[in-house]
Amino acid sequence: MGLNRKDLLGIRDLSVEEIRLILDTAEPMKEIIGREIKKVPTLRGKVVINLFYEPSTRTRTSFELAGKYMSADTINISTSTSSVVKGETLKDTAKTLEVMGADVVIIRHSATGAPNILSKYISASVINAGDGFHEHPTQALLDMYTIKEKIGGFEGLKVAIVGDVLHSRVARSNILGLTKMGADVRVIGPATLIPPEIEKLGVSPFTCIEDGLRDADVVMVLRMQLERQQKGLFPTIREYARLYGVTTDRLKLARPDALVMHPGPMNRGVEISPEVADGVQSVINEQVTNGVAVRMAILYLLTGGGNPHETIN
Amino acid sequence: MGLNRKDLLGIRDLSVEEIRLILDTAEPMKEIIGREIKKVPTLRGKVVINLFYEPSTRTRTSFELAGKYMSADTINISTSTSSVVKGETLKDTAKTLEVMGADVVIIRHSATGAPNILSKYISASVINAGDGFHEHPTQALLDMYTIKEKIGGFEGLKVAIVGDVLHSRVARSNILGLTKMGADVRVIGPATLIPPEIEKLGVSPFTCIEDGLRDADVVMVLRMQLERQQKGLFPTIREYARLYGVTTDRLKLARPDALVMHPGPMNRGVEISPEVADGVQSVINEQVTNGVAVRMAILYLLTGGGNPHETIN
Amino acid sequence: MGLNRKDLLGIRDLSVEEIRLILDTAEPMKEIIGREIKKVPTLRGKVVINLFYEPSTRTRTSFELAGKYMSADTINISTSTSSVVKGETLKDTAKTLEVMGADVVIIRHSATGAPNILSKYISASVINAGDGFHEHPTQALLDMYTIKEKIGGFEGLKVAIVGDVLHSRVARSNILGLTKMGADVRVIGPATLIPPEIEKLGVSPFTCIEDGLRDADVVMVLRMQLERQQKGLFPTIREYARLYGVTTDRLKLARPDALVMHPGPMNRGVEISPEVADGVQSVINEQVTNGVAVRMAILYLLTGGGNPHETIN
Repeated sequence: MGLNRKDLLGIRDLSVEEIRLILDTAEPMKEIIGREIKKVPTLRGKVVINLFYEPSTRTRTSFELAGKYMSADTINISTSTSSVVKGETLKDTAKTLEVMGADVVIIRHSATGAPNILSKYISASVINAGDGFHEHPTQALLDMYTIKEKIGGFEGLKVAIVGDVLHSRVARSNILGLTKMGADVRVIGPATLIPPEIEKLGVSPFTCIEDGLRDADVVMVLRMQLERQQKGLFPTIREYARLYGVTTDRLKLARPDALVMHPGPMNRGVEISPEVADGVQSVINEQVTNGVAVRMAILYLLTGGGNPHETIN
Repeated sequence: MGLNRKDLLGIRDLSVEEIRLILDTAEPMKEIIGREIKKVPTLRGKVVINLFYEPSTRTRTSFELAGKYMSADTINISTSTSSVVKGETLKDTAKTLEVMGADVVIIRHSATGAPNILSKYISASVINAGDGFHEHPTQALLDMYTIKEKIGGFEGLKVAIVGDVLHSRVARSNILGLTKMGADVRVIGPATLIPPEIEKLGVSPFTCIEDGLRDADVVMVLRMQLERQQKGLFPTIREYARLYGVTTDRLKLARPDALVMHPGPMNRGVEISPEVADGVQSVINEQVTNGVAVRMAILYLLTGGGNPHETIN
Repeated sequence: MGLNRKDLLGIRDLSVEEIRLILDTAEPMKEIIGREIKKVPTLRGKVVINLFYEPSTRTRTSFELAGKYMSADTINISTSTSSVVKGETLKDTAKTLEVMGADVVIIRHSATGAPNILSKYISASVINAGDGFHEHPTQALLDMYTIKEKIGGFEGLKVAIVGDVLHSRVARSNILGLTKMGADVRVIGPATLIPPEIEKLGVSPFTCIEDGLRDADVVMVLRMQLERQQKGLFPTIREYARLYGVTTDRLKLARPDALVMHPGPMNRGVEISPEVADGVQSVINEQVTNGVAVRMAILYLLTGGGNPHETIN
């Protein structure tokens, strides 16, 4: 049983069963990353293209390695954000890549829905690597993989997401995924950075971090985009760090074995203190490894792979 | 019988037999692109370098995939156009790449003749991927492959090239190739964008698109470089589209089964209407696929490949 | 007997035996570069990452090819020098690359000691590809390989390094390596571009090029960074060329069979005349080939390779 879909556009579209399949498939993939020789022939002769309209070393490299570990041919295309890309041109670009032989096009774009537009015009698989403030489904899947690996499941789990929830596609995809899997999600941040009517997503908002962290099983810290300050959404970096930074003292309010997560790159000393980032509860580095494993699983499943325990070697 | 030459610098240098050999070799290459596993070991252990002094995602990716499908190691080097590159430095750069092990250097450069200079100084094969307003031979070869595949031959074929012929290396290489193969080539555009004395190349110029399109077997639309407008070579984009845009109505003047071609990327609604671009007569997407096949053929032949039907698998 | 170290950070750390091992290992690697099929499976399933905070086509391509010739997966990450990179962020970046599966991280950085910082935080191997004005050990090793290959040894050899020694990490690494191997090193340049107290490194300074070149076995010309002129360190390019350019006439002062070396890219007509650069004594192109061989050797030894004569094929 593979994934019966051509694309991975967002967590919203995925069923609980599909999420489980992806997380299960990532497990043997992670084993491959740990091998002395990190190479399986699974995607030999397949073409995976990173089409990035926003710069991202981290996500691009993660997908590139995921492809290479499975022997795919990988191509990177970076287009500077300055060049305006219209929907129509995006369609032509995607079609061009497809007829050159692309099997999977991974797209990051500043416009919400760009991956969805793309997916309609090409028969190659499309993976959303982040679109505007909308979704970043592979980040949420790697976060869920990490939680499942460490805690075992999601049912009734208290997950606190801290930071600029309003502008975060990471938060949005995680909220959609975690609530779907039965977790109890809270968001914490200044009122200006919490989306209005967030309760409709089944989420409890907190403006007081101390209240929000209490008894949490998972503390998911978001990256603060420092340029938001100029827009007057919060007073100063120092003030933000003072009010919402996740520090050792605050972390004590959560459960003693609560996981600390961050999608990276971190602003140490702003949204997270160095002690917490490097502390025993932090699983931040494991998230990165799991990101490669989850992306391998997705590439594998979208290109027609079935039960991974039987076929990848 | 391979190609008895080290380099592919321009269509002007190629004999009719050489063009035929390249087009014939591209045929089995195209079959490879259509396979489930797009990978043959033909160029294993060979190094193909894309040395691009002008940005080009499309041509670069086409060559990169052509190399990868045949298991070559591919390296991309992009130099911003802002850094002035003198002939002497170009020579040193090329020599450096060669002594590192490059078997093929694919160069795009804004200066006419840059690939020719390069080819004199290195023993590695040089492929011209576009030099100034001069030549773009692989584009002409993929266009010819597409025409041959669809129509069967060139003898007596009426090919109309529409647009800014003056500044187009695509037009120039196609004129040289198509006339060599026996086609009857016409160019259509405003008088300011038609090269003076174009008749000497055996081509008939038309300033009235209706006259030029009549009974054409192939309508080859050129990309309008929108920045030309600032130089006063044509009044406005809208005016250009009105006078020279290839629309459904105008296309009816050509033969009913005439092919519509465009080297991409298209300015939809300017030089070509969306209906024509996506219409049944359009072979624009096939041109892109054929581009990879033709480039595979060229890489194969320049690195010493003989009869492809026997050796590539 | 492999190299008993995780990293290659500088020539200063290397023992004479380690330098000999690297140079010996580079020999069979060079043979691979000369093969019809330049590919061995030695590093299959290993990940080599070029992390370049300063642009460098030459060194990046050399390392990339070194990895590819041994079947490693190679990833390029270029960060523009404009983005300020703090030590802490560098650490997080490196850790991220490691947990994604990097076996070797090759770093070029404008800050002295950046590779050393990196090496402390990750268990992957770190190779210094140039840090500030500090060291560029792989360049010195390829220079030493070239000298050894051509002359046979270092003991008592007179090596004259000409140019901006003060700002040259190439000069610094060569001085450290060549004196360690028993060579007699002299540096030649304007007093403003010779480091004070250079004698403490066992080197003789000359401000008169004629005196410095006399009886030299090797003339190593440094690239003049033309922007130094603005800082008033030398009067004009023309004046520099007149006083310190290595010309045919000046070269006659060295031994008749003296080697001429340059790390590239050259400013022809400034620090070196075209006649000398392309003359019979020049080994500049061989340095480039040897650079790939030496980098293959280093990648091989750092990833656990033993006696290369037995295991690489």
